[in-house]
Amino acid sequence: MSDPKSFHMSPEEFRRQGHAVVDWIADYQSRIESFPVLSRVQPGEIRSKLPTNAPQQGEAFDQILGDLERVILPGITHWQSPNFYAYFPANASGPAILGDLLSSGLGVQGMLWSTSPACTELETHVLDWLVPMLGLPEKFLSTGSGGGVIQDTASSASLVALLAARERATQFTSNRKGCDGRLVAYCSTQTHSSIEKAIKIAGMGSDNLRHIEVDHKFAMRPEALAHQIESDIKAGLIPCFVCATVGTTSSNAIDPVREIARICRDHSLWLHVDSAMSGTAALCPEFRFIQDGVEFADSYAFNPHKWMFTNFDCNVFYVADRKHLIQTLSILPEYLRNQATESGAVIDYRDWHIQLGRRFRSLKLWFVIRHYGIEGLQHHIREHVRLAQQFATWVRGDARFELAAPAQLNLVCFRLRAGDDSNQKLMERLNGSGDLFLTHTKLDGKLTLRLCVGQTHTQARHVEHAWQRIQQETGKPGNS
Amino acid sequence: MSDPKSFHMSPEEFRRQGHAVVDWIADYQSRIESFPVLSRVQPGEIRSKLPTNAPQQGEAFDQILGDLERVILPGITHWQSPNFYAYFPANASGPAILGDLLSSGLGVQGMLWSTSPACTELETHVLDWLVPMLGLPEKFLSTGSGGGVIQDTASSASLVALLAARERATQFTSNRKGCDGRLVAYCSTQTHSSIEKAIKIAGMGSDNLRHIEVDHKFAMRPEALAHQIESDIKAGLIPCFVCATVGTTSSNAIDPVREIARICRDHSLWLHVDSAMSGTAALCPEFRFIQDGVEFADSYAFNPHKWMFTNFDCNVFYVADRKHLIQTLSILPEYLRNQATESGAVIDYRDWHIQLGRRFRSLKLWFVIRHYGIEGLQHHIREHVRLAQQFATWVRGDARFELAAPAQLNLVCFRLRAGDDSNQKLMERLNGSGDLFLTHTKLDGKLTLRLCVGQTHTQARHVEHAWQRIQQETGKPGNS
Repeated sequence: MSDPKSFHMSPEEFRRQGHAVVDWIADYQSRIESFPVLSRVQPGEIRSKLPTNAPQQGEAFDQILGDLERVILPGITHWQSPNFYAYFPANASGPAILGDLLSSGLGVQGMLWSTSPACTELETHVLDWLVPMLGLPEKFLSTGSGGGVIQDTASSASLVALLAARERATQFTSNRKGCDGRLVAYCSTQTHSSIEKAIKIAGMGSDNLRHIEVDHKFAMRPEALAHQIESDIKAGLIPCFVCATVGTTSSNAIDPVREIARICRDHSLWLHVDSAMSGTAALCPEFRFIQDGVEFADSYAFNPHKWMFTNFDCNVFYVADRKHLIQTLSILPEYLRNQATESGAVIDYRDWHIQLGRRFRSLKLWFVIRHYGIEGLQHHIREHVRLAQQFATWVRGDARFELAAPAQLNLVCFRLRAGDDSNQKLMERLNGSGDLFLTHTKLDGKLTLRLCVGQTHTQARHVEHAWQRIQQETGKPGNS
Repeated sequence: MSDPKSFHMSPEEFRRQGHAVVDWIADYQSRIESFPVLSRVQPGEIRSKLPTNAPQQGEAFDQILGDLERVILPGITHWQSPNFYAYFPANASGPAILGDLLSSGLGVQGMLWSTSPACTELETHVLDWLVPMLGLPEKFLSTGSGGGVIQDTASSASLVALLAARERATQFTSNRKGCDGRLVAYCSTQTHSSIEKAIKIAGMGSDNLRHIEVDHKFAMRPEALAHQIESDIKAGLIPCFVCATVGTTSSNAIDPVREIARICRDHSLWLHVDSAMSGTAALCPEFRFIQDGVEFADSYAFNPHKWMFTNFDCNVFYVADRKHLIQTLSILPEYLRNQATESGAVIDYRDWHIQLGRRFRSLKLWFVIRHYGIEGLQHHIREHVRLAQQFATWVRGDARFELAAPAQLNLVCFRLRAGDDSNQKLMERLNGSGDLFLTHTKLDGKLTLRLCVGQTHTQARHVEHAWQRIQQETGKPGNS
């Protein structure tokens, strides 16, 4: 009997249309500098081009792909443009995109070892590779008491770290009994907002999150942390968690992990180190100073999806003692029981994060590391830092500007001395021109522009042009 | 000046290697039935084939792709095989894979409207399309007080629903003050384990989760729910959340949403409806009976990544009143401030979920709906249900077997009357043969086999063969 009626795309049609999509992306990469970096559409403009209802009959693939160009592209802010300097980067690369494509094509669920052993074992293995690559402590290796797992984002990594800390501090009773309002967590005034979101989610209450003051470099003051912890203990509260940041979002400040770690040890607090963007710099030995003291952390996270050429989502999260994490997040219903799990010889990653299901995300990371090699990754990270440092030199050389924070790696925080209005207008003119895209923050109460060099294809000519455009918009048509 | 040294993949190399990867996937689709469905590797076998350290120098892409075949493929459990009947499906299709590829190629971050307006607006629009497609209530439309958002998984959807319920029940103070141990949530004894995980994460304590008993069809008993709520109120506790399931994992039981909703209204409880797999059936008007009463729900979730041909991850989550969700999850640090957000005219989806960053996941959903059309989707869902019903008929016709639960849609729960050992051995022989893969649960304390028809390419001949193989392994070499 022949196959019944089918609306599915056949392998041969997939091959043909897949080539067309690959070609579209290759062309997009070639012409990306021709688009305004920041999308210019108005709210509602994209929706207004879409039909009110879903189609009753299927449409030709060519037509769908045509609408990508016609309807979607004007509403894209081009994160993969070499002229993108906003926020932190979310860079990507050919090998990452193709590794991710294979993940979609294989379509496996890695929730348990047995539901695709390769999905679990490749992840464990590649994350073990990264430990010496980044100069991280051996305790994060899966071959000891620790191990790594890919989370979607640093927000989720911080949340699971906080949950494990909450459980450990309550002798593993908070899962069962809930929180009692006495657990306290600590971060700095510069820590990413995801920590505040995490403490709310975890039912600990944001009133119990202490924002420790920072020094002139925007790094946490350890003596202020120690003082606050002691004061909370005296008040009958239970300090349980500190988040130290290596490279804050506003200014790339680096908290003194070693001193913070000593305080955490004294009081048995869980130390989580969030190195979401800057962690990648540790691929280069000369930048490893940023994580001094990380050997005392209970958990550590960085995002290959920010600066390591691996497309979103890919956060790498390590714990020093995996049993705390697993005990916090494990639930085993009957329908997930299987021999491999019962034997205890395998990792089931669904016990390492919030979700149950999971993609085969290590494929793209494996592809990136093998395509570039350690040497290639180091080369491009060094080049990004060099370009940012060059830009900082130009800022220092122009008396109208000031650096608002130390530029230690690939982020430069700068501003016109003329005040917030001038900086706001400068940013709006630059972003409105479409030539580049950068964003702002506030440091010392002043509006500050941030230029972060981290997009895969940003080269010297792009950064030179950015400085030229800044000079033009501020009245100097100068060359750099 | 010429470009400096680069290790990046050029657009032309991406085009060439991209074609090779697409070809690999098309070939994989063509030969997928030649692999044992359940991987046969032993723990550690995949890792043993991988080099101890990451390569210092980059490797040729051909070599990497060759290792996919040599190292990875033996460790794959083939979720995309038409002979996959385990768990719930995680099906996929050509248009979904290609939509996801474009998401990777564009590489945008959709955390804010302004960071790529098309990423937000297409998602809002396609999720509005799905409301009438599934016969869901208009209150879930973004054009009213509600709206939809793509979450990664149903676990995350349940968690954010619970968090919003927690906040609403405490007059929006639990985020700030934490939990006080008095909030209570309700589900059935058959509800997915993610609800227990969520209540632990949310700091409410699993002691405060009530597992309401079920009837002979494994559906929640509304009178038992009402009784438990009243008893908790008398005890000074604060009931706040009920999860009703449309299609439980064990047996596809359908909780009586309408009656549960009435109880929730009486006591102002948040009603979340988890329809992770079975929600897709509502594409066909004749199956919409499963969600009777959903018009009274506060939130609703289903997974196109299970049964709607959209590769993982893609959970669709609706709320009736988006302001409760946003108030629960919103944090706005300076570095994310922008005009569009301040104007209030746009959706910023980072306020709708746990994470900050997000992929352009609506592209694949848009591609699937347009490729198949409503008609094509309905056709294949009907066909899956028809095949499962056919299988149930064969089970009913063989006196050695019994159905363990009503087979209402595409899941058949069955067992040999001979007892747990026989069923365990039957499952092991079937799965060990590589011809098909199914999993088990326990119903009424008895080991029960589950056969779920939902893989994209499962046709009559596959289900017939599954029944033949079962007959062979139980001593009858019969034809179906």
